[in-house]
Amino acid sequence: MERREFFERAKAIVQKSLKKKDRLIVNAVHTVDDLNNEINQLSERLKDWYGISFPELESLFPDPEKYASIVLALEKNEKEQLLKLTSEEKLNQIFDARKDSLGAEITENDKKPILDLAKSILSTVELRSRVESYLESLCNELCPNVSYLCGPLLTARLLAIAGGLEELAEMPASTIQVLGAEKALFKHIKRGSPPPKHGLLFQHPIISGASKEKRGKIARALSAKIAIAAKADAFTHHFIADKLKADLEKRLSEIK
Amino acid sequence: MERREFFERAKAIVQKSLKKKDRLIVNAVHTVDDLNNEINQLSERLKDWYGISFPELESLFPDPEKYASIVLALEKNEKEQLLKLTSEEKLNQIFDARKDSLGAEITENDKKPILDLAKSILSTVELRSRVESYLESLCNELCPNVSYLCGPLLTARLLAIAGGLEELAEMPASTIQVLGAEKALFKHIKRGSPPPKHGLLFQHPIISGASKEKRGKIARALSAKIAIAAKADAFTHHFIADKLKADLEKRLSEIK
Repeated sequence: MERREFFERAKAIVQKSLKKKDRLIVNAVHTVDDLNNEINQLSERLKDWYGISFPELESLFPDPEKYASIVLALEKNEKEQLLKLTSEEKLNQIFDARKDSLGAEITENDKKPILDLAKSILSTVELRSRVESYLESLCNELCPNVSYLCGPLLTARLLAIAGGLEELAEMPASTIQVLGAEKALFKHIKRGSPPPKHGLLFQHPIISGASKEKRGKIARALSAKIAIAAKADAFTHHFIADKLKADLEKRLSEIK
Repeated sequence: MERREFFERAKAIVQKSLKKKDRLIVNAVHTVDDLNNEINQLSERLKDWYGISFPELESLFPDPEKYASIVLALEKNEKEQLLKLTSEEKLNQIFDARKDSLGAEITENDKKPILDLAKSILSTVELRSRVESYLESLCNELCPNVSYLCGPLLTARLLAIAGGLEELAEMPASTIQVLGAEKALFKHIKRGSPPPKHGLLFQHPIISGASKEKRGKIARALSAKIAIAAKADAFTHHFIADKLKADLEKRLSEIK
């Protein structure tokens, strides 16, 4: 075998073992998390900074994205835009608060970098939603069954922590149930503390929305269905998630 | 006194006590730090993500800003832009590395969010430099003397940790010398470990660039001049920093 040919074969093996799709998904979901952090951090900064001139606004709009949009529309005096963002009643609250504001007046020159920061936050929010829809299409393509049950973000996080779709497909339901709760699991094994009922799966609305006593049972039912869905995605490539979901809903209605 | 008048007076007192300029400076420097963090974090993410298709590029351009610019120009096939960013020699290294790359081919659709991330990093870099020049003009206005000795970023950090310009002006040189090294200072007081030689001042190039033995002496000389400069900025408003700097340089030449 020639040297070049040998190299090409080695390359093909390496490329395959890197599991491209899995890695694309994992990077996309980590990017969503990074962008989330960034939006929260920069928005705290914006609230402090713009708070010099209008400290009362923060408590009216705690949500990062809303706050940044309101600051921009307010400073540009765009009344129409403000009415798109909030109700007339709340708008009057803003104007009342501004009249009696304890904030200091700052010059246009001092406002400019603050508004630049607000714009940057909004464009980061936009980037996050673009990455999220990309992630959704990627998950629907690679693992339509798991995605149907869990939604793209949770699916991507499961893949990230399992190490890929095949790895997830080879896990028993009981492992999937506690993925992401490794710390609590080892504490249980070593020191006999109560075992974790769920890890990442807590992010699924059917668990986070349930009462505390039911969560363990729901997590068990959900992880059983995910285990089947992952096997279908990795091996048979049939779409069976609608049936799995119906079964799951039936099981949920039985849990008391 | 009428209620309204009473309120207006109280408002004036609160607004004054909030020390507007100091707070603008502190917020601007914290924003620079936040944006720095963000640029570094997102650029690590970009290296991982784009690394799926071209892992070898990262070691050629470790700098975050350079890496993001190269990725964009490379993917858009802009040879002129690439030649502006790097030398012809290095460009050939890129093309050689790409020919034998162990990366996987990814579709245009998979590349899009990666390139969006790269663009977002570059616009954050731009925002950082705008906030930095704003910070510089603000420091030159509020404390031209300290700024002349320390540059805008270090000046702003000193103000942030001291709590404002007046607070800084009231500090003895020995306190300024160890500002930002509170942990080491208390360890010295409680447990008798060696006292810190410098805190934040280490960021000044005449200290970070000096040999280890000289740093303590230089920090002492520098903090003495900063203490005088801060008093001038807060109280007399004379510009004396050129003389202070000349004195400092004379003193530095004597330190062996």
